[in-house]
Amino acid sequence: MHHNQSSPLVGILMGSDSDLSVMEKAAETLKEMGVAYELNISSAHRMPDKTAEYARTARERGLAVIIAAAGMAAHLAGVVAANTTLPVIGVPIKSGALKGVDALYSTVMMPPGIPVATVAVDGAVNAALLACQIIAVGDAELAKRLDDKRVANRAKLEEKSKKIKAELGLE
Amino acid sequence: MHHNQSSPLVGILMGSDSDLSVMEKAAETLKEMGVAYELNISSAHRMPDKTAEYARTARERGLAVIIAAAGMAAHLAGVVAANTTLPVIGVPIKSGALKGVDALYSTVMMPPGIPVATVAVDGAVNAALLACQIIAVGDAELAKRLDDKRVANRAKLEEKSKKIKAELGLE
Amino acid sequence: MHHNQSSPLVGILMGSDSDLSVMEKAAETLKEMGVAYELNISSAHRMPDKTAEYARTARERGLAVIIAAAGMAAHLAGVVAANTTLPVIGVPIKSGALKGVDALYSTVMMPPGIPVATVAVDGAVNAALLACQIIAVGDAELAKRLDDKRVANRAKLEEKSKKIKAELGLE
Amino acid sequence: MHHNQSSPLVGILMGSDSDLSVMEKAAETLKEMGVAYELNISSAHRMPDKTAEYARTARERGLAVIIAAAGMAAHLAGVVAANTTLPVIGVPIKSGALKGVDALYSTVMMPPGIPVATVAVDGAVNAALLACQIIAVGDAELAKRLDDKRVANRAKLEEKSKKIKAELGLE
Amino acid sequence: MHHNQSSPLVGILMGSDSDLSVMEKAAETLKEMGVAYELNISSAHRMPDKTAEYARTARERGLAVIIAAAGMAAHLAGVVAANTTLPVIGVPIKSGALKGVDALYSTVMMPPGIPVATVAVDGAVNAALLACQIIAVGDAELAKRLDDKRVANRAKLEEKSKKIKAELGLE
Amino acid sequence: MHHNQSSPLVGILMGSDSDLSVMEKAAETLKEMGVAYELNISSAHRMPDKTAEYARTARERGLAVIIAAAGMAAHLAGVVAANTTLPVIGVPIKSGALKGVDALYSTVMMPPGIPVATVAVDGAVNAALLACQIIAVGDAELAKRLDDKRVANRAKLEEKSKKIKAELGLE
Amino acid sequence: MHHNQSSPLVGILMGSDSDLSVMEKAAETLKEMGVAYELNISSAHRMPDKTAEYARTARERGLAVIIAAAGMAAHLAGVVAANTTLPVIGVPIKSGALKGVDALYSTVMMPPGIPVATVAVDGAVNAALLACQIIAVGDAELAKRLDDKRVANRAKLEEKSKKIKAELGLE
Amino acid sequence: MHHNQSSPLVGILMGSDSDLSVMEKAAETLKEMGVAYELNISSAHRMPDKTAEYARTARERGLAVIIAAAGMAAHLAGVVAANTTLPVIGVPIKSGALKGVDALYSTVMMPPGIPVATVAVDGAVNAALLACQIIAVGDAELAKRLDDKRVANRAKLEEKSKKIKAELGLE
Repeated sequence: MHHNQSSPLVGILMGSDSDLSVMEKAAETLKEMGVAYELNISSAHRMPDKTAEYARTARERGLAVIIAAAGMAAHLAGVVAANTTLPVIGVPIKSGALKGVDALYSTVMMPPGIPVATVAVDGAVNAALLACQIIAVGDAELAKRLDDKRVANRAKLEEKSKKIKAELGLE
Repeated sequence: MHHNQSSPLVGILMGSDSDLSVMEKAAETLKEMGVAYELNISSAHRMPDKTAEYARTARERGLAVIIAAAGMAAHLAGVVAANTTLPVIGVPIKSGALKGVDALYSTVMMPPGIPVATVAVDGAVNAALLACQIIAVGDAELAKRLDDKRVANRAKLEEKSKKIKAELGLE
Repeated sequence: MHHNQSSPLVGILMGSDSDLSVMEKAAETLKEMGVAYELNISSAHRMPDKTAEYARTARERGLAVIIAAAGMAAHLAGVVAANTTLPVIGVPIKSGALKGVDALYSTVMMPPGIPVATVAVDGAVNAALLACQIIAVGDAELAKRLDDKRVANRAKLEEKSKKIKAELGLE
Repeated sequence: MHHNQSSPLVGILMGSDSDLSVMEKAAETLKEMGVAYELNISSAHRMPDKTAEYARTARERGLAVIIAAAGMAAHLAGVVAANTTLPVIGVPIKSGALKGVDALYSTVMMPPGIPVATVAVDGAVNAALLACQIIAVGDAELAKRLDDKRVANRAKLEEKSKKIKAELGLE
Repeated sequence: MHHNQSSPLVGILMGSDSDLSVMEKAAETLKEMGVAYELNISSAHRMPDKTAEYARTARERGLAVIIAAAGMAAHLAGVVAANTTLPVIGVPIKSGALKGVDALYSTVMMPPGIPVATVAVDGAVNAALLACQIIAVGDAELAKRLDDKRVANRAKLEEKSKKIKAELGLE
Repeated sequence: MHHNQSSPLVGILMGSDSDLSVMEKAAETLKEMGVAYELNISSAHRMPDKTAEYARTARERGLAVIIAAAGMAAHLAGVVAANTTLPVIGVPIKSGALKGVDALYSTVMMPPGIPVATVAVDGAVNAALLACQIIAVGDAELAKRLDDKRVANRAKLEEKSKKIKAELGLE
Repeated sequence: MHHNQSSPLVGILMGSDSDLSVMEKAAETLKEMGVAYELNISSAHRMPDKTAEYARTARERGLAVIIAAAGMAAHLAGVVAANTTLPVIGVPIKSGALKGVDALYSTVMMPPGIPVATVAVDGAVNAALLACQIIAVGDAELAKRLDDKRVANRAKLEEKSKKIKAELGLE
Repeated sequence: MHHNQSSPLVGILMGSDSDLSVMEKAAETLKEMGVAYELNISSAHRMPDKTAEYARTARERGLAVIIAAAGMAAHLAGVVAANTTLPVIGVPIKSGALKGVDALYSTVMMPPGIPVATVAVDGAVNAALLACQIIAVGDAELAKRLDDKRVANRAKLEEKSKKIKAELGLE
């Protein structure tokens, strides 16, 4: 039985409402995997107090992992990580002239002491899967669901491979 | 009481013996935090079977997290992640002409389905701390030790700040 | 006489079905040059066993060259090359925020011991021509066809040059 | 008369004590220009509360400008700017594998609403001069000293030009 | 009372009329903040005399800050800064094949002696806000308006956060 | 029996004598694998006729593969490939301010029609191994030697792994 | 009197017919400046003999300057420069995944001995103007026309500046 | 007969005295080719009036070409080019954290109307040769000397090739 209705284990933060079109895939993936989550806009720059407070109280409120997504000079994940020792997953968002390279460097190049677990630019699905994998260290059922999803994905991809070969007259 | 002598929770893999000078800081950090670990050279390219086998059996052997460090076209973390649903932390190593940008992109830009939790280029200490943070989701004592370490680091930095100000005659 | 119907000499692998729009030009080029090929989706990350198995058995199944195309953290060519000593041609695919620079670095910056013959980002035609050139080392007729194709291309380009000059009133 | 002994107008913050070797040139420049300053280590990540508090109280404590220097994922200037509407000057520090490109992007690519006045990587002297120029908007004497310094610099450079020409036998 | 009708405190320069679509946001922001401004096209390359003259006479004409926006090899801000000790804010404009990285480097990497306060690529709004923050060092009312704007922005963002959570059925 | 003394199968070209310190590893690897080679300096820019002539006559002189190494605007491999349909392997050399990124792009980004099989920056060993792999398509003994070398390399790396673990007291 | 009908002084070469959409602006500019030119497609890779021959005979055929435009691994300008001591102007063309950075590096980073006068990516107009400036070293009338064109451009830009200010109600 | 003692045809400008170690090779090359030159430090930023004046009067003082070398945000060549229609050759100098990429972009990416003939980063020799090639358009003797130098360079390189082959026992 999935604990969808229970209190959230994963907190998704976004630096801007424009990040939602990317990050809703993280929400969908968590839902699909049966992991309860909450979601907030909490800009590191425009809402510094809310962001720090959210991170500082995250563990006591029952969160296990925080996913933080931001673009450009993406400080959100780092600022959250500075205020908690929960695992923080950073999602660099592609936006502006530099197309996400700025957000990638701003998120991943953290100095010693304050790690951020960074995924690919716009890597919302992988952020959610990584959160699940972290929770699954102590949740064998969830680990099983993750394994099952991989098997299913592999089968789907194998189907596509067959279809393409048929279309090209190669089988 | 630290479980240093117990069976390893973290597996450190390196693509080459030359990565050791960077990665020994990860080993030291895990030791300091009291988290048992093992360490192996397991090149994704030169030892593909060993690497896949290591990853496939990691959960049943009791590992909770795998740290994978490699330079240049750094496929190690991705190959490990492809063979387990344990959390995999990737450490891009600075080596060769491109100075780690190649390793960073090869480690972090994983396609949807197979996440790698990437830290900074040569980010060995943060890889170890992140592994601890992941384990601490289910280990309140370790979480406490992580919090204590932060407080201690802050105090040390504050000392340095005071010393510098004294040297500059600013206080 | 071209050996189009015979058993394949070139194996094309793609990390994702979305790579087909680029890679079908490789298939067309091989067909045009009369070199038999096969084509499969075989993601290094989502199908690690299939990929390793494919590479390990390639030589005994009669393949001479493998072309591996993937985007982002493009490990496919490297993983294939790790499992065979056949020549492996890597095609970095432009996709995602970094537009193929990530795939280029992930494909070309292989450590000593496991080479990948890398072509340009999205260089599907050249991957096929390079495969032909490799096979033509032992196939004088194919070498002749490659030379003829160059002569024909040159003539076509010369035609275009003349047409442009006429349009600009320069001749 | 210079107001060197008076209460500080410029606050210099550094993310790490290792930034001092670069930033002491900012301190020297402010001293030379007769602008009182203070200096602190205040890591955005390791001292988030101190940093926010410093920025929030800066204006009421009489500061006119804050200079913030940090390397790698350099969030310091952005975090300071998020907590004050005083002008904040960011100095990206060259350190680690990416040699300051990461710090530059992390400092300059701020989203709309929270500006950081960014100078060159390791641009400590210019950060100090820019702080002076900002203060000089309301301090005609300081503006005069800035103009004088430029004239003096020009003369020095002209001397060097003559010396080189003499050495090369060109005059 | 806003001093909108009074003589300009901020001079906006653009290297090309094509920069207007970005820079009109700077003009709007200054208007909104009640800071009088003027605006000119003054290419560093095509109008070198006008540009130097503009900068040289800026302080005596009552300007407090100059904002200079240019794309590609963006020399405008540097050339202006070379001719005045007023604070000069540089806005790198995204244009041409390199998409603003060229303009960013050309604007921010100024040698010691001649600072340019650089904002993000296409960062017109922040350039205007930074100009306001500089003027507000000596204008408590403007400082108050800047603080008020931040509070208002925060409230708007909080509204968006609530709306998104409602839409996702998370509250 | 190795055909070391026989007429060369691989031609190594270098754009400059300064490339020898990198490329001698290619020569050593070919020697070790028992593949006869020749070696020449033949700058695409300073010796255009020699270079074109070398490439045009390569097949009839019995060469099977050409390895071309050059730094900066590295045109050598492309120019050689333009004059032969033999497989041409390009080795970008790290030199000058851009540290080999220029040589990599100049070598790998060939337009459709003229492929260059590019290896890593300074990838001399892999260039030689790739040449061997190409020749081994028609030489089962060489293929066997390549396989044996991989097994030997793997064993050496496994030894290093054990030694490190012993040193760290982990076994 | 313009010598439009006379024998060409400038030779424009393009690596591909797809470069025409950019390079026709070079042709138009030369026409406008009254400098006779010729134009050819001459790919360094697909037409190596034609290209070398063209360059070798250029001076004796009366050309004064050659403009060479190419994309990706843009060897055309370098190959032309290798075969003549006439001034060669290189125009890197934006095309393919790397958007012209590859062409820029391939064109500008020439090794000592064989210079290429490189202009901006897609800088067709400036290539033509530079060719005129080179010819104008020995042609005072052309120098005059170049000066006049600058004055005219300045006036046009000043008009645009006035129009924009009028539209914004700033004058 | 070389016109070494005559009035200078080439003016070398450097943005800083630290550029001399690179640019003295340009002076040596001009001397070797028998082309009279002058040399000045003339920073675009610290000596804007001198620089503009130098460029504006260059043609009437008898200069044929100006070489301008600068590092970081290298505006010198562009500023010179803005003030003359003589051909201006830009030499980006490697200095500071970005190692010359900043200087390259700042020099080469000039907007339409004001061309700069850019050579490689630190390309002092090629700048001098290009200046000679430009002058040689109207000076057949100099053209002959340039051709002779190429032949001599080729012979020297051929000697090196033979020496290396002898050392490796390949001939």
